[in-house]
Order: sequence, then structure tokens, then C-alpha cells
Amino acid sequence: MQYPEPISKLMDSFMKLPGIGAKTAARLAFYTLSMDEDDVTDFAKALISAKRDLHYCSICGHITQGDPCEICQDKARDRSMILVVEDAKDVISIEKVRDYNGLYHVLHGILSPIEGTGPEDINIPSLLKRLQSDEVQEVILATNATAEGEATATYLSRLIKPAGIKVTRLAHGLSVGSDIEYADEITLMKAVEGRREI
Amino acid sequence: MQYPEPISKLMDSFMKLPGIGAKTAARLAFYTLSMDEDDVTDFAKALISAKRDLHYCSICGHITQGDPCEICQDKARDRSMILVVEDAKDVISIEKVRDYNGLYHVLHGILSPIEGTGPEDINIPSLLKRLQSDEVQEVILATNATAEGEATATYLSRLIKPAGIKVTRLAHGLSVGSDIEYADEITLMKAVEGRREI
Repeated sequence: MQYPEPISKLMDSFMKLPGIGAKTAARLAFYTLSMDEDDVTDFAKALISAKRDLHYCSICGHITQGDPCEICQDKARDRSMILVVEDAKDVISIEKVRDYNGLYHVLHGILSPIEGTGPEDINIPSLLKRLQSDEVQEVILATNATAEGEATATYLSRLIKPAGIKVTRLAHGLSVGSDIEYADEITLMKAVEGRREI
Repeated sequence: MQYPEPISKLMDSFMKLPGIGAKTAARLAFYTLSMDEDDVTDFAKALISAKRDLHYCSICGHITQGDPCEICQDKARDRSMILVVEDAKDVISIEKVRDYNGLYHVLHGILSPIEGTGPEDINIPSLLKRLQSDEVQEVILATNATAEGEATATYLSRLIKPAGIKVTRLAHGLSVGSDIEYADEITLMKAVEGRREI
């Protein structure tokens, strides 16, 4: 006897999500049976709605219900700065800080020769197109501090600088509240390199 | 700026599942946006269908589409044996072995004084009712080999034995293919206790 069909179908769906294998899928599917019917209905509706109502902004690539997104439409934003991130989640992380008032550009990926991801496979052409207008004076590269994130930042920097646009990178260093003792060597090196006078 | 409403609702739904916190929920919700529309629709349908079409068998408590479940209805099953498990998933694990041909009883939980789970809170009354018929000759206690699983087995054993029904417990010992070196002490103790002549 295998799982009854409705639950095995649900397990299949859970298994399509990243990081969820057969055992976790079974656990989640069985848990669903014990949930309130309203919660399950809401879950199903939320799935449909997220897929149907959200898409990527045609300018910056951020997720949005309307197009262009709220940020691109916002007249109060400083249109001379574009902060480049790998992922739409990163936009939300930076927005939470309420310190940055410029625009964004979401790459939806990162250059990766190993995985065969080239400049055309991520949102780089649309970024270069945006830079053709004279409005943009600074591009802040906020790709992650991984080998691929650094390589993508270097690549973009070489491409953008010749156009006379200022290119900056987010500061790397010790996390606030962290111990020097537990910091990795690269982070410590970056912290020393980026030291500031006080 | 917070997450757009459709995605924050989807994150809320994911966070109702066990073991999924805010960060994982965000990752899964954003991943959903990049999935095929058909896959998302199937996922939503599977949720609704699992909740609507499946329920617990009125006899044994196993998940089923019809009632009673296929196992309880199967005339070829040995009706003199009931194997007691904590969870419907355990029924499927044992069925996969194709070695056991008796009936099941799913407790849907385990006795836990700390969490305030008493005999009335899990499927124990319905088990005792089933034992009142003369058909049942053996109850196999297959609760997990945890402290609470053992306590529940002991509790049930004391309750059932006086009725003249044979009560057994699944054998505990070394996993097949495992090294003695890496076995924990309790498992080794159980393996020595349960040794068999060859």
C-alpha cells in the first residue's frame, strides 16, 4: 500500500520546493491534514494569488503587483543612484533599514561560469540600458560577499566605470556586535582594509 | 516597504507549517514565483484535495479516502492482530515491508505528562473498544523507541494484558548494516537483552 493519492500528490508538490526531500514532504503533507480547513484554503489561495498577481518590474526587476513597481514610480526617490542586488529579497532587506533612498536593480542571479550563467542570462542588459540615460550618477554594487558575488561586482564595475559613472561597493567588515575572535580571515582582512578614521 | 501583500500572505501560510521560520518561508514563497504556473496550480489543488478528500478511518484512525479504510475493509487481512502506531506515516512504513498482514490502530499522538496529553487525548479509547470483540488475540505495540513511546507502550500493556490478550513490542536492537562502534548504549543494551540463538 502506498500513500493515498491526494496525499502523494501533495507530497510531490512539496518536493518541488527547494530543500524539501521525501521525508520532509511527507511530514508537511500529513501536518496539512491536521490543519484548520480555513488555513489550508488560505494557503491554496495565497499560492494562486502570488503566482497570478505578482510579476517582475519591467524597469528594475523587483517583484511588484503593478508595473512599474512602487519604488520606480516614487517621485521622491533619488533617481541618480541605482543599487544592484542579486535577488528581490535583498531589496526588501535594504528597504527595512530606511536609509537608502535611491533606485534598485535586481539581477535575478549571479555570474557563474561553473553553472554557465553569463551576463545575458541575468538582468545585466537591462541595467546597462538604464545607465544610458544621463540621470544615473552612481551605481552601488550590493551583490553578496561570495566569490561569485565579488566576481559579478568586478565585472559590472569594469563595464560601467568607462561611462563615467561612479561605481561603489557595500562596505565589508565585522558584523556589528560580533567578536573579532570569531570573525573569519577574509572578513578581518576586509575590515582592516576598510578601516576609517574616528 | 514591506513584502507585497500576495507574497506576505504566502509566507504566513508557509510559516504555519512545522519547522518553517520566517527566512525559510520567504525563500519558499519567492521560489514559488519562479515556478511553472501549472505546478503552482497543482500545488494549490493538492492542498485543497488532501484536506477535503482525506480523513481518518473511523475504525483504526489511518488516513483514508473511503471509510472504513482499505486495510480495515480487506477480508484477506488477519483480524486477530492489531499493530498500534503513533502516526499514520508509521502504517505506511510498515506496509512497505509487506511482511505484516494484520490490522492497525493509529494513536495520533503519544502519552506525554509534560505536554498534558493523557489517554483520552489520543486514540486509546477506540482501541480498547476494538479489543472488546473476541477476534483480537494479539496487540503489537509499535510506538517509537523514545521515552514517551516506551511509557505509552507500558501503559497500554498494563491495560490490555488483564483481558487475556497477548501484548508484544517491536524488537529493538542494532540497525541492519550498522556498526557496533557507533551504536548508542541503550540500543546496545536492548540488542544484548534481545539476543537470539542462531
